[in-house]
Amino acid sequence: MKTLAALLVQTGQPLELVEIEIPALKPGQVLVEIAYSGACGTQVMEARGLKGEDKWVPHCLGHEGTGTVLEAGSAVTKVKAGDKVVLSWIKGSGIEAGGAIYMWGDKKVNAGGVTTFQRHAVVSENRLTLVPESLPMDVAVLLGCAAPTGMGAVYNVLKLQPGDSIAIFGTGGIGLNACLAAALGGASPVIGIDPSPTRRALAKTYGATHVIDPTGVDVIAEIKKIVPQGVDVAVEASGIPAVMDQAINATRQQGGRAVVIGNAKYGAELKLNPGVFNQGKSLMGTWGGDSVPDRDYGRYGRLLGGGRFPVKGLLSAPYSLAQASQALDDLADGKVGRPLIDMSL
Amino acid sequence: MKTLAALLVQTGQPLELVEIEIPALKPGQVLVEIAYSGACGTQVMEARGLKGEDKWVPHCLGHEGTGTVLEAGSAVTKVKAGDKVVLSWIKGSGIEAGGAIYMWGDKKVNAGGVTTFQRHAVVSENRLTLVPESLPMDVAVLLGCAAPTGMGAVYNVLKLQPGDSIAIFGTGGIGLNACLAAALGGASPVIGIDPSPTRRALAKTYGATHVIDPTGVDVIAEIKKIVPQGVDVAVEASGIPAVMDQAINATRQQGGRAVVIGNAKYGAELKLNPGVFNQGKSLMGTWGGDSVPDRDYGRYGRLLGGGRFPVKGLLSAPYSLAQASQALDDLADGKVGRPLIDMSL
Repeated sequence: MKTLAALLVQTGQPLELVEIEIPALKPGQVLVEIAYSGACGTQVMEARGLKGEDKWVPHCLGHEGTGTVLEAGSAVTKVKAGDKVVLSWIKGSGIEAGGAIYMWGDKKVNAGGVTTFQRHAVVSENRLTLVPESLPMDVAVLLGCAAPTGMGAVYNVLKLQPGDSIAIFGTGGIGLNACLAAALGGASPVIGIDPSPTRRALAKTYGATHVIDPTGVDVIAEIKKIVPQGVDVAVEASGIPAVMDQAINATRQQGGRAVVIGNAKYGAELKLNPGVFNQGKSLMGTWGGDSVPDRDYGRYGRLLGGGRFPVKGLLSAPYSLAQASQALDDLADGKVGRPLIDMSL
Repeated sequence: MKTLAALLVQTGQPLELVEIEIPALKPGQVLVEIAYSGACGTQVMEARGLKGEDKWVPHCLGHEGTGTVLEAGSAVTKVKAGDKVVLSWIKGSGIEAGGAIYMWGDKKVNAGGVTTFQRHAVVSENRLTLVPESLPMDVAVLLGCAAPTGMGAVYNVLKLQPGDSIAIFGTGGIGLNACLAAALGGASPVIGIDPSPTRRALAKTYGATHVIDPTGVDVIAEIKKIVPQGVDVAVEASGIPAVMDQAINATRQQGGRAVVIGNAKYGAELKLNPGVFNQGKSLMGTWGGDSVPDRDYGRYGRLLGGGRFPVKGLLSAPYSLAQASQALDDLADGKVGRPLIDMSL
């Protein structure tokens, strides 16, 4: 069986829409008909070669999506044919079955345990979770990456308490989910910082009480006009080292903490005044918002689907699979929060 | 009333032992006859001018000690004359009464809310805690700084779990208390790293299962010979930025965390690969080990006094007050773990 995929053939070049041959399932693998894929800064970095040398090209892309199980390989117990599933890069329960190898003519195409920029994908059992009933498929796609990373960073890593003040640096897809999590968790004020007017407007729609355009201003001073002692917690979702430094400096002394969820470019260097640690501030990292899919995705689904925010608008008007490169460019340019790719287009 | 004090008159010069006049107590202040003082890296940095310009000279020094209350000022309710007390820089309950001004001839001498390099001191009520019954005065002195910082970093900040692996960079007074806390908390292995053979020997006495001399070796590689995936948690007690980088890199991916308790020199710069945060590692700061004196000092006292370790040896053979400069030099040179100054000598 063949399917269409948007492949990364060479870094720095547009993705190529090609037909690839789907391999037979190995134990623990699942064949999924993809309905929707999201696109993340990680794919922008991969496509542009910003993560260092790419030894895997040509390869499939994408790490959040939703779809329907067509066939479960041997030993799979978590899902069965017909199930609606979230595809996520974060490992949950189930078999880690390794990546699939597709064929493109006579060329091998690499893929990780989950990929989503394609109509059908062979996915490892442990990257699948059932879609919560509260969410339509075109919103549940957020559960693949943006929601567990952004919401998990706020709840699991920062351990936000109601009434905490928060600053969110970068209000793209993951930052917007952090914004939403902060608002739903009772944070106040919720300050969104982004140079893109589109993203600042989205931040206000999704829970920010204040927004700041960081262009040409002293961001820390602007934040301290709102919270003089500095914020209790901060989220760094830009991946820019200088912004990581701002994030920890924006927090209060004795207990302020900032979490980095933005992906830094390969070879980037972060310079900090080590005295911030002696002031009792922490700079925390996270792997997928410390989210555990089987524990957390139902909870995030209830929060997203609770009706307080029009969550569908977190995602862009849909792109077709053929427009996947455009989706990445628009994401990189700050034109959209989280691009949605609809496989039916 | 006059008393003897070892004053910092000029940074970079030895302390001067002089007689100063004790002022009348303000509300919330307490006059304490000091029995013992510890000495900390902070005083080394102050005396050598490594914290930047010092606007307060001449001033008193020292921030951990034990003593007996001679007189409680008005409004003080926490202690009374005759009480044996711990003097600590970490604020607890009680009045924040500000610093005292002593007179040295016709010159004003500044002091913070607590100072201890002197026979008698005027101390703010909120820097005093009763000495736990389990500890003699010459050990309880550790409760002023080294124990709450080192033990608190392990228990309150890193939230060590039994069985966690830990690396402790710098096994001076605070690092040794972290070592002890790790061992008493069930950590395994406990790896102490220090260039001083004296301090490595102390680390082995106080709970380290392994010690590493970092001189001329790849410390991370040495640690990974013991714990291949990297340690669960790490303590940075040297204040050296390059060692802070080692501490976070010594931890495991997805949840590894290092806490900085070493004081960095003024103007120091920490350079990190920001990718460590994307690997799910955290670099945490703390203010006094996040310790709350009224909650924690009794607990730390029970742990120190529990008899499993010969805690008196954590402190040096005592120095006299006249030898305070020598104590700081020996501390800076790694000759002792934690200098003890005995006011009766």
